[in-house]
Amino acid sequence: MTEALPMGATIGILGGGQLGRMLSVAAARLGLKTHIFEPGADPPASHVAQALTTAHYDDTAALTGFAQSVDVVTYEFENIPTSALDVIEAIVPIRPGREALRVSQDRLTEKTFLQDLDLAVAPFADVTNQAMLTEAVARIGVPSILKTRRFGYDGKGQARLTSADNIDHAWAQMAAQPAILEGFVDFTREVSVIAARSAQGEVACFDPGENLHRNGILHKTTVPARLSAAQRTDAVLIAAKILNALDYVGVLGVELFVTDGGQIVNEIAPRVHNSGHWTQNGCAVDQFEQHIRAVAGWPLGDGSRYADVTMENLIGADVENVAALAKESDAALHLYGKAEAKPGRKMGHVNRITGSPSS
Amino acid sequence: MTEALPMGATIGILGGGQLGRMLSVAAARLGLKTHIFEPGADPPASHVAQALTTAHYDDTAALTGFAQSVDVVTYEFENIPTSALDVIEAIVPIRPGREALRVSQDRLTEKTFLQDLDLAVAPFADVTNQAMLTEAVARIGVPSILKTRRFGYDGKGQARLTSADNIDHAWAQMAAQPAILEGFVDFTREVSVIAARSAQGEVACFDPGENLHRNGILHKTTVPARLSAAQRTDAVLIAAKILNALDYVGVLGVELFVTDGGQIVNEIAPRVHNSGHWTQNGCAVDQFEQHIRAVAGWPLGDGSRYADVTMENLIGADVENVAALAKESDAALHLYGKAEAKPGRKMGHVNRITGSPSS
Repeated sequence: MTEALPMGATIGILGGGQLGRMLSVAAARLGLKTHIFEPGADPPASHVAQALTTAHYDDTAALTGFAQSVDVVTYEFENIPTSALDVIEAIVPIRPGREALRVSQDRLTEKTFLQDLDLAVAPFADVTNQAMLTEAVARIGVPSILKTRRFGYDGKGQARLTSADNIDHAWAQMAAQPAILEGFVDFTREVSVIAARSAQGEVACFDPGENLHRNGILHKTTVPARLSAAQRTDAVLIAAKILNALDYVGVLGVELFVTDGGQIVNEIAPRVHNSGHWTQNGCAVDQFEQHIRAVAGWPLGDGSRYADVTMENLIGADVENVAALAKESDAALHLYGKAEAKPGRKMGHVNRITGSPSS
Repeated sequence: MTEALPMGATIGILGGGQLGRMLSVAAARLGLKTHIFEPGADPPASHVAQALTTAHYDDTAALTGFAQSVDVVTYEFENIPTSALDVIEAIVPIRPGREALRVSQDRLTEKTFLQDLDLAVAPFADVTNQAMLTEAVARIGVPSILKTRRFGYDGKGQARLTSADNIDHAWAQMAAQPAILEGFVDFTREVSVIAARSAQGEVACFDPGENLHRNGILHKTTVPARLSAAQRTDAVLIAAKILNALDYVGVLGVELFVTDGGQIVNEIAPRVHNSGHWTQNGCAVDQFEQHIRAVAGWPLGDGSRYADVTMENLIGADVENVAALAKESDAALHLYGKAEAKPGRKMGHVNRITGSPSS
């Protein structure tokens, strides 16, 4: 697939959560249809999609039918089983490509990949048993964080080490899964760059956003981030290096720690990213449309920002404030259509337009 | 229905075109689902809706099933058969209400309604036969426009009279349908106000847009319109008077001719309106969400505008320029997913952000 997909073509999306939902809406704006593949019932993305396949990722027949009905496949999460990708890729292209998934599915592979690009990362060590953890703690020190290599997100599968006495407890929390110990980084702030690369190799970045987390989950992103012009340039160069190294097609989220000694890459996500939701109310082409444009072989938007915006997640019971939020001037609500508000579940977000671009 | 619809509720939409499509997307942003009722195949709105009923407006069983599956019904066009509305209204509320439809379905009723509100309208006359047309032309003069009372839009069902010699020809074009003769208004510009009224009686208006037509179809809307502060106030007061008189719930489009002697109401549309599409890229809450908020009993957005915007329709073959439009900085594409680009068919629009609010 080297030509741009024509209007009326269909994009397959693996995963039916809020990211798939907002990708579907963006595809519709470009006259494209979407087909969602999702094991769970009543997925949010299906409310705004042309078609839905409800099946598990080991259902070869369902995957085959899905792939045959679409022109290209993308995804809203990185932990897709390799076997499912193999079935799909025999039929249609997957964008972003397999290399991005291979790298980002495993924290150790990802850190090694970034280090090999001469990008700064936190000190890290491979930990597959308790003895290796003891050695790693001796080398990297505390405080540090032990994380499962795979399937972690929003602070899940993590244990913080504050003293060598915690080793037993921390290792137990990994439930014998391969892990990685990451040294603590003394950062002044965390920012993220939402960057995109087209099928033709063009790169476009949105302005970096400044992130605030609560309980290991993103709480708020503010644009512009408090960065110097030189820091902004560095952030863009880091993102572009990663995109080019992966021969990437689509939107990539790059989380960066800003330190006195420069920016350190925390992690990358080969997909649209929660910290890029502000673009929906700050840019003519938002991150979701940018991703769809790349995946469909269309030209990218240039990332121009025409408003200062803050994005705040509505998590669990936060969504009960919707009536009050709906009355706020300059607030744009984005709710995900999830039936039940469980603690920690992302139910929606609100973008607040705080002014004309201030930088 | 006096309470706000909860998230997860379903809004039924009569009509599956681009307006229904953009209403569906707006409903999704508020966590609401949509069910489209449309006789035609593969309607654009169905690509982003939870459910679709394909049936004609005289199919009582289909209308009943549709109404039973939703919490409230709205519509994207005004020419819905009364019999269909009767079936639906026995089961669920219709918003905006029947009075708005009754008034706007017939140009003569609409003009009389506006005149009774002491609003300025063009001179008009009831024309049901050729003799009445001869009398009307003698009274109103030429140039003037003969229009069918019902089912006209985008310049269809209209004949222009430039001399009394045209009477035979003009009357023939009406095909014996009841008509209305409208005198020519010497206006400096045409503007429109997209106004909303909530179930609680709140009124909110977006900034007036200035409209440019080509071949009887809207070509371009520019915000801000070239109006004085006093003219803006007048426009808002006119819209509010109409909304209140109709005990209206939803978004209403009001087209106004600006003349040296004040503003003259050209026509009203009891729905979201093409000239309000700019709000998608100029406001936190666009006209589609504003309509859904009203219909769902939610609080209205306040109409704040945070960008200057021009909206240009992509009609027929215009859509072939999409590749070039996609490369433009600050241009937001909105394509409707229609399979075939026929002459005169609205295929999409482009909103161009031209700057921070200039007034």
